[in-house]
Amino acid sequence: MALSARNNLHGTVQSVETDGLMAEVVVEVGDGQSVTAIITSGSVERLGIEAGDEVDAVVKATEVMIEK
Amino acid sequence: MALSARNNLHGTVQSVETDGLMAEVVVEVGDGQSVTAIITSGSVERLGIEAGDEVDAVVKATEVMIEK
Amino acid sequence: MALSARNNLHGTVQSVETDGLMAEVVVEVGDGQSVTAIITSGSVERLGIEAGDEVDAVVKATEVMIEK
Amino acid sequence: MALSARNNLHGTVQSVETDGLMAEVVVEVGDGQSVTAIITSGSVERLGIEAGDEVDAVVKATEVMIEK
Amino acid sequence: MALSARNNLHGTVQSVETDGLMAEVVVEVGDGQSVTAIITSGSVERLGIEAGDEVDAVVKATEVMIEK
Amino acid sequence: MALSARNNLHGTVQSVETDGLMAEVVVEVGDGQSVTAIITSGSVERLGIEAGDEVDAVVKATEVMIEK
Repeated sequence: MALSARNNLHGTVQSVETDGLMAEVVVEVGDGQSVTAIITSGSVERLGIEAGDEVDAVVKATEVMIEK
Repeated sequence: MALSARNNLHGTVQSVETDGLMAEVVVEVGDGQSVTAIITSGSVERLGIEAGDEVDAVVKATEVMIEK
Repeated sequence: MALSARNNLHGTVQSVETDGLMAEVVVEVGDGQSVTAIITSGSVERLGIEAGDEVDAVVKATEVMIEK
Repeated sequence: MALSARNNLHGTVQSVETDGLMAEVVVEVGDGQSVTAIITSGSVERLGIEAGDEVDAVVKATEVMIEK
Repeated sequence: MALSARNNLHGTVQSVETDGLMAEVVVEVGDGQSVTAIITSGSVERLGIEAGDEVDAVVKATEVMIEK
Repeated sequence: MALSARNNLHGTVQSVETDGLMAEVVVEVGDGQSVTAIITSGSVERLGIEAGDEVDAVVKATEVMIEK
């Protein structure tokens, strides 16, 4: 199955910090740039996300802003 | 001034397509990866966004999902 | 691959209306309830979304509000 | 008063878990499908949300993705 | 019924511009500040939103950023 | 640099509550109206946000709903 979200940045999980209901996942996406995601701890557990994993950071296009 | 949003991906605008109220901006962020933003045409005009511009694609961390 | 988004409502596409950059997709999710999605026309094309398709409406948990 | 958000899924609260600032509310919306919402604990208190309540899960159409 | 969204800014509609599926609504919220909303044209019609209307601009707290 | 987000409500921070990964910031934006933001504690620290600070509450137009 494929998702309508336009943005899939491939990278490697640098760190996962869970804190109660929420978790912070940092993904290195190349060229020294990283993406931080706040997701539920439930999803971290369900997907078994750990440092070193190859993952995609997924973002719907309507959520992206441009700074110039 | 600095913004609380955790994600600022630096890149180069590849294309801008405006269509009535909305516009689609594609930013090449390095390593062959790109980010697509849907913003208002009003903002494209106000910031003068054009192909070739150096910009940041900005995303709040709560908007990012992880796919594994 | 699995996505961290907590909400996947399975249903059948009732209608797809594309209009320039954006498209409106209505999904019947059972019990007479439906979900409306605004996505890019580019994603409608890429996924080949048409009335009658079985799809999931996907929503990140941080985007859901409760009305009581 | 009526809200512009296009999606109002009616259902019954299955569980509410509060954890500091944030809370996770799971709503059974029929046909064995459920919706998970992350809202503030302040809103859980203000609305008095409890398991068994009849509520609507409300989502803006621009926040919905389609997976096919 | 009450909504979990924490932000309800009361104001007066200054302008409504519809363009195909989407519409832009500008609300003057006092002290010379205004809020711009992109909603569906379907919602503009359903609620009958017109310049001069007293409305609330509603935003979930997780969607707000801080710039300092 | 300027951001494409259409909504910048100027105001004064009334309170900041941090709780593990997340923080709640309340901004008084004039006329007795306030805006509540849920951001990461990491951003509260990085920007040094404290009660009394003059800040902007920033919201992308696609995140705003209208209630009438």
